[in-house]
Amino acid sequence: MCFECADASGGQIDATATAQTLAALDFERINPLNGPVYVEGAEPGDALKITINRFYPSGQGWTANIPGFGLLADQFREPSLYLWRYDPVTLGPALFGHQGARVPLKPFIGTIGVASAEPGLHSVVPPRRVGGNMDLRDVAMGSVLYLPVEVEGALLSLGDTHAAQGDGEVCGTAIESAMNVEIHVELLKHTFLSAPRLTTPGPVTCHLDRAGYEVTTGIGPDLLQAVRASVSYMIDLLCRLYQISAVNAYMLCSVCGDLRISEIVDMPNFIVSFYFPRIVFH
Amino acid sequence: MCFECADASGGQIDATATAQTLAALDFERINPLNGPVYVEGAEPGDALKITINRFYPSGQGWTANIPGFGLLADQFREPSLYLWRYDPVTLGPALFGHQGARVPLKPFIGTIGVASAEPGLHSVVPPRRVGGNMDLRDVAMGSVLYLPVEVEGALLSLGDTHAAQGDGEVCGTAIESAMNVEIHVELLKHTFLSAPRLTTPGPVTCHLDRAGYEVTTGIGPDLLQAVRASVSYMIDLLCRLYQISAVNAYMLCSVCGDLRISEIVDMPNFIVSFYFPRIVFH
Repeated sequence: MCFECADASGGQIDATATAQTLAALDFERINPLNGPVYVEGAEPGDALKITINRFYPSGQGWTANIPGFGLLADQFREPSLYLWRYDPVTLGPALFGHQGARVPLKPFIGTIGVASAEPGLHSVVPPRRVGGNMDLRDVAMGSVLYLPVEVEGALLSLGDTHAAQGDGEVCGTAIESAMNVEIHVELLKHTFLSAPRLTTPGPVTCHLDRAGYEVTTGIGPDLLQAVRASVSYMIDLLCRLYQISAVNAYMLCSVCGDLRISEIVDMPNFIVSFYFPRIVFH
Repeated sequence: MCFECADASGGQIDATATAQTLAALDFERINPLNGPVYVEGAEPGDALKITINRFYPSGQGWTANIPGFGLLADQFREPSLYLWRYDPVTLGPALFGHQGARVPLKPFIGTIGVASAEPGLHSVVPPRRVGGNMDLRDVAMGSVLYLPVEVEGALLSLGDTHAAQGDGEVCGTAIESAMNVEIHVELLKHTFLSAPRLTTPGPVTCHLDRAGYEVTTGIGPDLLQAVRASVSYMIDLLCRLYQISAVNAYMLCSVCGDLRISEIVDMPNFIVSFYFPRIVFH
């Protein structure tokens, strides 16, 4: 089945938008989803097996620092917006501003999930056991995603398509981009799946890693603080190496840098590493 | 310069060792390092630039679940040991037990650091701002590592060589393996580096990712709990898919699976994903 997905702003951020547009954003219209789709025969305890077949991207997108949102919201308080254009057919790397940076693209579905059994109204922002706004960058072409069903009919929804994003989505937005998506859904009975899982058909970062990585580390007993440190150090490094502004570095980190946990066992200190692909500035 | 590194047990776990050997382990001898090397002219505020030139692996190694140590120590209370043999010249994938699993190898330095300015005796277990037991799997051939100097002469030490490890080293050990290491050290004056960083010369996972990944997720407001969930779900999945024991799955996850933070911004829930390379069972 095919879904025509709007961008995460629901069309509020178009080709004429500026940083001022962000201040006027109607948050009630954020992250519109397509669905819900009722899956015949689906019951609690089953799982949906969803094959991501194909993307038909629109060729335009945006990345923003939205005040109050993002990993380093306390450091980046001013709104900032970048409007992308890319070739929707070749999907060649997309130019970032006048910095000579080019970001390799790999479209994926940012939000995909089924209905929660918990009663009430649920915000679309946090992901849950049933999926949702997972921003898991490998829900991409060829991947097979499994979601646990909690209600009769499953009630599958999706949207929030991204042209590129790194692990973490650190500034809070990816290359937000309207696109059509083709998926295939199967019902698996009685799987009792604990949480979303997926299978990728091949390498997940070979579009990025040919020129290697710059890697910064955050070290300490608090995992979230280590995450923040690793990203802050990368922003500092990119500013120094490539003479770009801090907010541009932050947004670039969000669309193509990866948060990895290098070690989680050498107590009491963890190491979180932020990997930035050097091909972006080659 | 060249270092002859013992394995992390300091030779206590040899080709005749069993799970019982773990119970008798002398922890005073754990993680022996080579050094310290005094670097002429190095002062606080400088950095060492360390190029990792070459590894001469021994061809044998071990992975253990050591009671009380590791991410899921509360669930895995019994000692378990696997002894590896591999070809030190071709570095072909190493066979794991009778499960038909083969782990691609990529040697690296588990522990490398300079002296802390903080007075006193410091355990070798936790990594610090000056490096140490980082278990950062890309401190591998061709990488360039930068470490902040805190004392006169820097006092560089290294050891704890690993033949393979995933991001996280979740069970607490990698493929622990004695090997000789050749590095080149340069002194950079007045860099005021905040924490270790490195540059990799090329792709970091292409030895692993040809057949894609199985990916499990941990979702929730507590990052460490999300980490634990993602690893637990992967252990369950590997047990079911490949009929291996839970402790074997746990050790395999440690030597070749990767912890990634998929999103850190969709409050209040984070997603940690564990990526297991399917080539291991192909």
